[in-house]
Amino acid sequence: MPRVIKPPEIRSAELLDCAQRLFFEHGYDNTTVNDIIREAGLSKGAFYHHFTSKEALLEALAARLAHDSLAELRPMLEDPSLDGIGRLNALFAGSRRLNVELAPQLRKTFFVVFRPENLALFHRVDQAARELVKPIIADLLRKGSDEGILDVPDPEAFAEMFLQLRLIFRDVMQRALRQAERGNIDEAAQLLDERLRLYGIAIDRLLRLPNGTIEAAQPGFARAFLDANP
Amino acid sequence: MPRVIKPPEIRSAELLDCAQRLFFEHGYDNTTVNDIIREAGLSKGAFYHHFTSKEALLEALAARLAHDSLAELRPMLEDPSLDGIGRLNALFAGSRRLNVELAPQLRKTFFVVFRPENLALFHRVDQAARELVKPIIADLLRKGSDEGILDVPDPEAFAEMFLQLRLIFRDVMQRALRQAERGNIDEAAQLLDERLRLYGIAIDRLLRLPNGTIEAAQPGFARAFLDANP
Repeated sequence: MPRVIKPPEIRSAELLDCAQRLFFEHGYDNTTVNDIIREAGLSKGAFYHHFTSKEALLEALAARLAHDSLAELRPMLEDPSLDGIGRLNALFAGSRRLNVELAPQLRKTFFVVFRPENLALFHRVDQAARELVKPIIADLLRKGSDEGILDVPDPEAFAEMFLQLRLIFRDVMQRALRQAERGNIDEAAQLLDERLRLYGIAIDRLLRLPNGTIEAAQPGFARAFLDANP
Repeated sequence: MPRVIKPPEIRSAELLDCAQRLFFEHGYDNTTVNDIIREAGLSKGAFYHHFTSKEALLEALAARLAHDSLAELRPMLEDPSLDGIGRLNALFAGSRRLNVELAPQLRKTFFVVFRPENLALFHRVDQAARELVKPIIADLLRKGSDEGILDVPDPEAFAEMFLQLRLIFRDVMQRALRQAERGNIDEAAQLLDERLRLYGIAIDRLLRLPNGTIEAAQPGFARAFLDANP
């Protein structure tokens, strides 16, 4: 079979498609670079031309999922009936919905980053997604502030702070996953829900809004997320 | 010379002393494990018995410095004339003072963790210090809450959030150090001061206090910190 020459961005996307399919089905740990190049019909050299490692592939996959999720949520955020608070709540509700829909796949692919020894990988993956989400949040804060609905001294810096604060969930997820592994799904879900509730309170306070204005938590979310079967 | 047998914790402390002396004088990058064992008069095997790597040494050094700093600040935090807000401000003021006093040494030893490629090392070092600081902050929040001075729904979780939020300074320090390297000390200091001011506002808001209550920033601090000569 003659070798098909394709533009590098098409090859990268195909490699990501293959990796995603394999990670979603068998899990990140159970998929090797060899599995991915076999599935993609490429040589090892061609793979490493596009990605320096399996970790780099996971990072690119996180960026692509964040990009696609934001594209899916964008119309909701542009709903003209919403004000600055409504848009933030729409973003939280939308991202909860996507998290539950994709829960089995996310678990197989990304839960590996919560393992203590994978701290560096966690931060790579998080940073890749964060770069895409930050301008969206800064924009929501700026618009809400211009409308006089939100009290935000510096939308860029506050967007960074919101995203930084989200990282308490690395620790919380580590603990929740350990409990879930031991069969204590109720306790794991309770821990995650409680921290989401406190995260919502923190966002309310950072925006000087009454407690309960920003709905980061939702009853049953953690259970649905942790419980979703592949 | 007969080999002197010492308890392992004494040996570890001696190795840390040697490493600290060399890091403080020549910088982390310019000090090798060989330099440290030569200075300590130990074999390589003995070194690796105590520390798995130079990174592990830096982590232990961060923990020791955090421990010693907290010990030095403790009497101030126990000043009976202070209330919950006064104690938090005393903690910020004390840690600013120690940061300026130790600035040249901290720069030579720890600024390496702000380099983008040292993300994992940054988080190891931060986590080591954070484990020691977290219970102190949780305790200050709990006491302030018991006194009715501070409004804190969950002292442990809020202590985690305060420390998590502090990590915006990794990015900010990266940017400030790049500017300082280019000779733009004024801009670097302004960036750092401004983010400290916003961090203070964030803490005020998280505690539902009026803006300007918690004094995280102080005019001239960033300049003194960045400018301090070795």
